[in-house]
Amino acid sequence: MPENDDETPVCDTAITLAFSVLGKRWNGMILSVLGTGVTSFVGVRKAVSGISDTVLAERLLELAEAGLVTRAVAEGPPVSVRYELTTAGAELVPMISQLGTWARRNLAKPVERVGR
Amino acid sequence: MPENDDETPVCDTAITLAFSVLGKRWNGMILSVLGTGVTSFVGVRKAVSGISDTVLAERLLELAEAGLVTRAVAEGPPVSVRYELTTAGAELVPMISQLGTWARRNLAKPVERVGR
Repeated sequence: MPENDDETPVCDTAITLAFSVLGKRWNGMILSVLGTGVTSFVGVRKAVSGISDTVLAERLLELAEAGLVTRAVAEGPPVSVRYELTTAGAELVPMISQLGTWARRNLAKPVERVGR
Repeated sequence: MPENDDETPVCDTAITLAFSVLGKRWNGMILSVLGTGVTSFVGVRKAVSGISDTVLAERLLELAEAGLVTRAVAEGPPVSVRYELTTAGAELVPMISQLGTWARRNLAKPVERVGR
């Protein structure tokens, strides 16, 4: 583990970078759903239980800016927008599946927030 | 992908479960740091840049309740508390490292929040 000036260990910057995406609520689920071939905004929203339109729109924009998702607009009418994983985004899908396998074996139920 | 009553695909429940832990800010970094052998509260706080004492205490409690971290109090003086990964928590460490390797290759910089 890298160390900072006073020899205290610090978290690997690559892991910090990874969780700037995956440590945000919904992102892992959104990427996983896109990985199954769902391409529409409504399809993703229905598959990710509990997410609002506003938050999903923000997350898709962030994931597109990070280079993990493409957003293609097909002129209409009706105008339709397709969301798809980029190669970088698609590389995450098997790792996310592996986390799911781990969770099925090791977590009894969703982890509740403590306090506040 | 499992489907719900009206045939809309839904996100795999195991993946939802995995991200009830990992989709929360700091948790991936905390688990990663504990995976390097850091055992003290102060050690984790120093390694996870930007986390507050209050939030770290909450997260460690949640991770302990989820069965991923143990908290052992050694009677003092001074009283000391050791945090360690359980077997289930330790199983995540190589998967988290893999996510770091992916991030190093694919993410130029931390993903910024869009809006609000």
